[in-house]
Amino acid sequence: MARSTPLGSGFARIAVIGLGLIGSSVALGVRRYLPDATVTGYDAAAGVRDAARDLALCHDLPDAMREAVADADLVVLCVPVGAMAAAAEAMAPHLAPHAIVTDVGSCKASVVEALAAALPAHAIVPAHPVAGTEQSGPAAGFATLFQHRWCILTPPEGTDPAAVARIAAFWEMLGAEVEVMAPDHHDRVLAITSHLPHLIAYTIVGTASDLEEVTQSEVIKYSAGGFRDFTRIAASDPTMWRDVFLANREAVLDMLQRFSEDLSALQRAIRWGKGDELFDLFTRTRAVRRSIVEQGQDDARPDFGRSHD
Amino acid sequence: MARSTPLGSGFARIAVIGLGLIGSSVALGVRRYLPDATVTGYDAAAGVRDAARDLALCHDLPDAMREAVADADLVVLCVPVGAMAAAAEAMAPHLAPHAIVTDVGSCKASVVEALAAALPAHAIVPAHPVAGTEQSGPAAGFATLFQHRWCILTPPEGTDPAAVARIAAFWEMLGAEVEVMAPDHHDRVLAITSHLPHLIAYTIVGTASDLEEVTQSEVIKYSAGGFRDFTRIAASDPTMWRDVFLANREAVLDMLQRFSEDLSALQRAIRWGKGDELFDLFTRTRAVRRSIVEQGQDDARPDFGRSHD
Repeated sequence: MARSTPLGSGFARIAVIGLGLIGSSVALGVRRYLPDATVTGYDAAAGVRDAARDLALCHDLPDAMREAVADADLVVLCVPVGAMAAAAEAMAPHLAPHAIVTDVGSCKASVVEALAAALPAHAIVPAHPVAGTEQSGPAAGFATLFQHRWCILTPPEGTDPAAVARIAAFWEMLGAEVEVMAPDHHDRVLAITSHLPHLIAYTIVGTASDLEEVTQSEVIKYSAGGFRDFTRIAASDPTMWRDVFLANREAVLDMLQRFSEDLSALQRAIRWGKGDELFDLFTRTRAVRRSIVEQGQDDARPDFGRSHD
Repeated sequence: MARSTPLGSGFARIAVIGLGLIGSSVALGVRRYLPDATVTGYDAAAGVRDAARDLALCHDLPDAMREAVADADLVVLCVPVGAMAAAAEAMAPHLAPHAIVTDVGSCKASVVEALAAALPAHAIVPAHPVAGTEQSGPAAGFATLFQHRWCILTPPEGTDPAAVARIAAFWEMLGAEVEVMAPDHHDRVLAITSHLPHLIAYTIVGTASDLEEVTQSEVIKYSAGGFRDFTRIAASDPTMWRDVFLANREAVLDMLQRFSEDLSALQRAIRWGKGDELFDLFTRTRAVRRSIVEQGQDDARPDFGRSHD
């Protein structure tokens, strides 16, 4: 193939489909770290396309997906996981034969299946950059979002190893560290480290809002005792998370079952005054935090480094 | 009474009993914001007393509680709530008649009862500064911990209003905003805004540690997807939290029951693919976060302002 391949990425033309927090961060990351590549962008919402143009996220931002993906060497799908199948089907007729397709979905088995069905002739290397904030939309993105975060690749069996290597290199250039994992295993790991935490945070914020004798204003006023940390997570994008729970249903329900059993055991310990059981668990959980900080996966400063001045 | 009252606090000699995160922060706060007052300190653990001396937390740090509280105009009890009764009983014979006693316990009905029983002749103004970090011990304290945080006073009925006003002024000088509340109501508000979030965080970190097919190292590696926020809360002091759950058992169990019902409803929505129910809740919870940020109870910066560079 006689296309120009800039040094570094090996992709001359990169299309980002879906310009929310992650998509806009990918586009900005490419512009900063792969300055030789051309970024085209597309979002199904006209308002998002307009905002993305105002923010100059991409070199080119046509009104039709067809034009965004035509001639692309790499397509990065950054839509909610429930929208992956439709987006892949819509682009299929317009994709160059050599184009590699990757995505950023938070669950992988269902996405691998959808992409393989829609794009049987293309190299597909699904990815999940484990990074984000509670904010959404094209203005929320920033080029350094993936720095020092993990990006998990889940290529289906039989994927060309060269395509996997190129996608790994792409994410590394955006600052991520790359791991390869089977889609099913990914979905179980993320069910516990990401999906269940979000489900629980959404639930407790809902529970607090519904109390009749504690007012909403009291919940907000005294949120510094722990609750506010949960509200940050429960402020994440509703569409994205609805899709994650529906798409990763089995693993989420299994982890939820285990969590509920453990919660019942703690409930019983409280009811019967078994202080030793509580103390033992609370001591064990401290060690996990220590490891996360030691391995650079969180800020070591107390209270996430929040200002107290 | 002919004692010297420095301008500002109205307390010439302040005793801080218990020198963990909160006690050491009170001592440092007094030294910075009430420089005319003398701070004496005490901790039941000899190692903590030694550390506190090395850190120069107090003007005077005797080896006997008796000496720390003698001549104090104000005693601030900063021990775990399960140790309040014993500490109050131990100091009772040595307390000056005019001394006012306050505390920093995270639940109040049981503390009000314990202090009133042990110190029937003294003015008692229980307090709960809603502030803290996940760290513990005398080296974790800092003078600005209470800045712009709420401090809830729960004086028992019949408490001298002048004593309440003096304690309110004391916490305001440490930077807090003060509210007065009935002890039972406090315990229900904090059960949802602080105690239940901690219980849930401890539980999920425990659940994640026990999974057989997801390794501990995977849980830590991919914790940036939400889990790491929970580990911060689950790193809080085990003794303190054991005591809180046992002392505020009724309110915690009630809130936990409501939470479990709501979680079951979400579980059912996921199992039956009811995306609209999920979406509606996830949209509602966003608004709560917005209010918390608007009211200055959390950092507005995405991801708590964590660095991404």
